[in-house]
Amino acid sequence: VEYPKTKQNTIKRGNKKAHYDKKTIYQILDNNEICSVAFTMDNLAMSQPINYGRNGDKIYLHGHKKNKMTETIIQNGKVSLSVFQLDGMRLTRSAYNHSVNFRSAIIFGDVKELTTDEEKLIGLECIINHFVKDRWNHCRIPNSKELNATRVIEITITQASAKIANARAIDSDKNDYDLDYWAGVIPVSTCYGQPINDEELKKDVKIPSHILDFYHNHQQIKE
Amino acid sequence: VEYPKTKQNTIKRGNKKAHYDKKTIYQILDNNEICSVAFTMDNLAMSQPINYGRNGDKIYLHGHKKNKMTETIIQNGKVSLSVFQLDGMRLTRSAYNHSVNFRSAIIFGDVKELTTDEEKLIGLECIINHFVKDRWNHCRIPNSKELNATRVIEITITQASAKIANARAIDSDKNDYDLDYWAGVIPVSTCYGQPINDEELKKDVKIPSHILDFYHNHQQIKE
Repeated sequence: VEYPKTKQNTIKRGNKKAHYDKKTIYQILDNNEICSVAFTMDNLAMSQPINYGRNGDKIYLHGHKKNKMTETIIQNGKVSLSVFQLDGMRLTRSAYNHSVNFRSAIIFGDVKELTTDEEKLIGLECIINHFVKDRWNHCRIPNSKELNATRVIEITITQASAKIANARAIDSDKNDYDLDYWAGVIPVSTCYGQPINDEELKKDVKIPSHILDFYHNHQQIKE
Repeated sequence: VEYPKTKQNTIKRGNKKAHYDKKTIYQILDNNEICSVAFTMDNLAMSQPINYGRNGDKIYLHGHKKNKMTETIIQNGKVSLSVFQLDGMRLTRSAYNHSVNFRSAIIFGDVKELTTDEEKLIGLECIINHFVKDRWNHCRIPNSKELNATRVIEITITQASAKIANARAIDSDKNDYDLDYWAGVIPVSTCYGQPINDEELKKDVKIPSHILDFYHNHQQIKE
């Protein structure tokens, strides 16, 4: 199933790397912790990093009720956000062909503020479980005071595109292959370290399986 | 030396984490490969990831001459971009206090297109050496055909702010410390793998020291 290709989301440059199918776009969203939300402030476009969650074609964001960015995108009714994952650095013989391997997604959507406690809890559960799978069942869920201080936003994806580059260090000028410069790829990945117990952790609380699973299911930092 | 605190760059929420000094802001820019550039397209703010370089208060970007984003920010004359580095995931007893450790910077600047080959080469050298230190001296520099196909943009930073969070998994409600939920931090880092020779590398070309240094001076993927 694909998102429609419109003037807004159609990739022009590097269109061989373009993808519009939901499966690819959802995988990129699910693989990353942070998205970059664009909004306009004082007549200038800005971007701000934030956590999120995804369920089907809905993306959930949250922020303190005094947060300017959430206020702005609610008022605007429409929003664009992007996710970028760096997979490798391509070092070619020519400066010109230096590039990166990556997976990125650009999302366009309609913004709706969730206002009932029931709706807010659904959005927050999605965000917390996106952070660490199954975490919602292993923490204290928000009380009404906390829900009142939090704005939860539901974005319905209306248009989206992904771009994936995964290639060797290719030089476009064949003559460059005769040069003595080193060329190759340096892999890049977001990596996780061993979970560190909080110093005020209650005695006898062990690192639970949902946390160990998270650590073992992701690329790890060499320590 | 600090950037001025104006209406545009002053951090309101979480202002204890705010920094305005150039040293901190430059370090965040220098530690990261990718920034997120904000721009307006068809009346909607968007953000797009891109490589960059920094020298003093100048940030350099480049793109193909047909690239829409570079065209748009040149026409606008002003731009905002952000850089975000995830350092850790804070998992608290309460869902409400889940958070991340991070270092981020938001930059506001004036945009100037570099038009002479000499100026363009200065910008491109900065971008390539930001990618991998000293790489410019170990690759073929761009020829005039390549320079003609490339737009190089110089952004002079006029305002900037940074935000740094580096804390334990702190619950704001003291009662939560009696709960049996696990709390702690999972460290996060961008990590690099061992450099992989290109399959068409000339015989006898070894991995040079600027590449080995890059690998050894960064956090590494556990392989």
